Amino acid sequence: MHQVITLTTDFGVQDHYVGAMKAVLLSISEKARLVDISHQIPPQDIMAGAWVVRNSAMLFPPNTVHLVVVDPGVGTNRKPIAIKIKDQYLVGPDNGIFSLITDQYDYKGVELTNPDFWRADQSSTFHGRDIFAPVAAHLSNGVKMSELGQPIEKLETYRWAVPISDRDGVQGWVVHIDHFGNLISNIPESMIRDAVGGGDLKIYVGNTIFDTVVNTFGDVPDGEPAAYIGSSGVLEIAINKGDAREMLGVEKGAQISIVVQK
Amino acid sequence: MHQVITLTTDFGVQDHYVGAMKAVLLSISEKARLVDISHQIPPQDIMAGAWVVRNSAMLFPPNTVHLVVVDPGVGTNRKPIAIKIKDQYLVGPDNGIFSLITDQYDYKGVELTNPDFWRADQSSTFHGRDIFAPVAAHLSNGVKMSELGQPIEKLETYRWAVPISDRDGVQGWVVHIDHFGNLISNIPESMIRDAVGGGDLKIYVGNTIFDTVVNTFGDVPDGEPAAYIGSSGVLEIAINKGDAREMLGVEKGAQISIVVQK
Amino acid sequence: MHQVITLTTDFGVQDHYVGAMKAVLLSISEKARLVDISHQIPPQDIMAGAWVVRNSAMLFPPNTVHLVVVDPGVGTNRKPIAIKIKDQYLVGPDNGIFSLITDQYDYKGVELTNPDFWRADQSSTFHGRDIFAPVAAHLSNGVKMSELGQPIEKLETYRWAVPISDRDGVQGWVVHIDHFGNLISNIPESMIRDAVGGGDLKIYVGNTIFDTVVNTFGDVPDGEPAAYIGSSGVLEIAINKGDAREMLGVEKGAQISIVVQK
Repeated sequence: MHQVITLTTDFGVQDHYVGAMKAVLLSISEKARLVDISHQIPPQDIMAGAWVVRNSAMLFPPNTVHLVVVDPGVGTNRKPIAIKIKDQYLVGPDNGIFSLITDQYDYKGVELTNPDFWRADQSSTFHGRDIFAPVAAHLSNGVKMSELGQPIEKLETYRWAVPISDRDGVQGWVVHIDHFGNLISNIPESMIRDAVGGGDLKIYVGNTIFDTVVNTFGDVPDGEPAAYIGSSGVLEIAINKGDAREMLGVEKGAQISIVVQK
Repeated sequence: MHQVITLTTDFGVQDHYVGAMKAVLLSISEKARLVDISHQIPPQDIMAGAWVVRNSAMLFPPNTVHLVVVDPGVGTNRKPIAIKIKDQYLVGPDNGIFSLITDQYDYKGVELTNPDFWRADQSSTFHGRDIFAPVAAHLSNGVKMSELGQPIEKLETYRWAVPISDRDGVQGWVVHIDHFGNLISNIPESMIRDAVGGGDLKIYVGNTIFDTVVNTFGDVPDGEPAAYIGSSGVLEIAINKGDAREMLGVEKGAQISIVVQK
Repeated sequence: MHQVITLTTDFGVQDHYVGAMKAVLLSISEKARLVDISHQIPPQDIMAGAWVVRNSAMLFPPNTVHLVVVDPGVGTNRKPIAIKIKDQYLVGPDNGIFSLITDQYDYKGVELTNPDFWRADQSSTFHGRDIFAPVAAHLSNGVKMSELGQPIEKLETYRWAVPISDRDGVQGWVVHIDHFGNLISNIPESMIRDAVGGGDLKIYVGNTIFDTVVNTFGDVPDGEPAAYIGSSGVLEIAINKGDAREMLGVEKGAQISIVVQK
């Protein structure tokens, strides 16, 4: 089976950057099957990219190579790396982009130090084309991690606030807002269950108060806000057939308080 | 030949939603060839999605599976379905998204009731990943429609105003505005021919009056408006090298009147 | 090996236009491997498309066919063409879209005059679907250029200002602004080297003056502007972790002056 290489970048597609990377991938791994995940990660937003990687990479078939380039530090001393998690490979800059997935899984990493697997000439501003894409293609061709460079133990981690829980409730934050304007929190379902048990709760977000967690936003009337456990396993806030960011006036970083009703 | 699976959604691509669906598709149908049609259907705009499906699905090679997820009612009682039209398969929610294509073609449909072909766990908010993508992949693998669930006779239809024609002319509407700002009407070429014959006509749209239907917008000077039969077989209004929506101040839903000149 | 067909258009993806072209490509060349380069070329911006083609096409594996449709003159007397440059094929309108690549390479061209390789019916407004996609698919299938139509010697060229250099320095222009807001000039590295030698220089762009060319934008502090040779081999201006277009207030067409310091 020809291996899959996915692409996740903040490059947008009005330029040639994505095309150039795809050309390099196919020139080295001519049978690779390219799968776009996103080229619309907000420019230089490492954490938004990390969220996408966390929620999609591990679902792919064995031996998929994930090329992930959100790289505001390109050409500086941030390290180019490849990591292996179970049967998935990820290639990109060591700038925190893999933080959310390496939080959850054991990994082996190498720093990309062997230029034999790079393009002959490297620019200082486009390692996506010149280092990461060639390495991803060679991995897809079966090159071993150990050939690509030296093992690396500790990766850069990008800090993401951890939700706080006690007997009174849970404090968390809106860590992502999706295309529909849904507010994604960092509060996992299990933390709510542990804090609240079978009791009553109130959830405070901006000026809005919820006193129940519903199954899906479709369970409340059109235009009404809903709190529910989303498809990524964390608390989300949405407006049924509306845009919660806009209608509730809540932005990324906003606090979410869950208070146990005693 | 490895079958083609197309994807049409309102998910945008800055999130992981499209990547997660592609991962599920490839995990079940590892040789499937994924083809993005659009992930930029305006959020929850069922009719805009229906228009894209109507104008692209039937052009694909035999046995293509079209995964179509514009699904504001996810997790409620709207039915998940698969339909077959000629040699094409379409999978998605029964919310009108297939209205414009089932208007034109005979179809066979099933309600997706057999969880053997779904992911083991289903969220309430992401049936694209948990139900529709797995079913599309299984169809691509050769699973029969009848294995997926019970036959369904009557699909939800989303109302789209039908143009009205008499001896005085035609009343229609702008039903879609494309990326270029071109105004797409619901008035087919044949209806104009039947009403006007070889005679003269006037076309009223917003504040603009046309007294001729040209071959293409390139036939009028730069910056001028043109009325012509577009590539989808219906009357369109465009500005040569301009944006008709913006320059004529016309939005979706605007009336178009064709008056026979006697 | 199944050949690659790339797609570069200004169609956006909220409509069916891209899907319809992909359907036609796969119907004729069922094993072709479709690779999206961009569908977000700014509407009718021939030169932005030409820039993307120039910077990506020649990197692809041998016998790749590049379908390029930025075609504001569709349906008028502009000619449909196919050209061959080294082992790459390009198909699209003769409106200057291939100017920047034919500037750099020898080519052979044909005007597409043989309707045997088109769709049976052609609209006047969607030659992407009706002429260019079928021709691209037939080329991918091995049809010879000479079967597609008559040789064409002279292509339309779109004028792009050429930078001017003398012993006092270089005058150039911002010819492209990328997704990150980086300002891309038309001044190649070699021209700067020839004019400045090992001496000092000043670079004037809008209200900003640079007195050095750095290796990459990451070499200056966050929020500071940098001048450097970009990955396309020309002078670029960026803000480290910022948007130069916005922060410097510079638009496409702005002058860039390099003055030798004596």
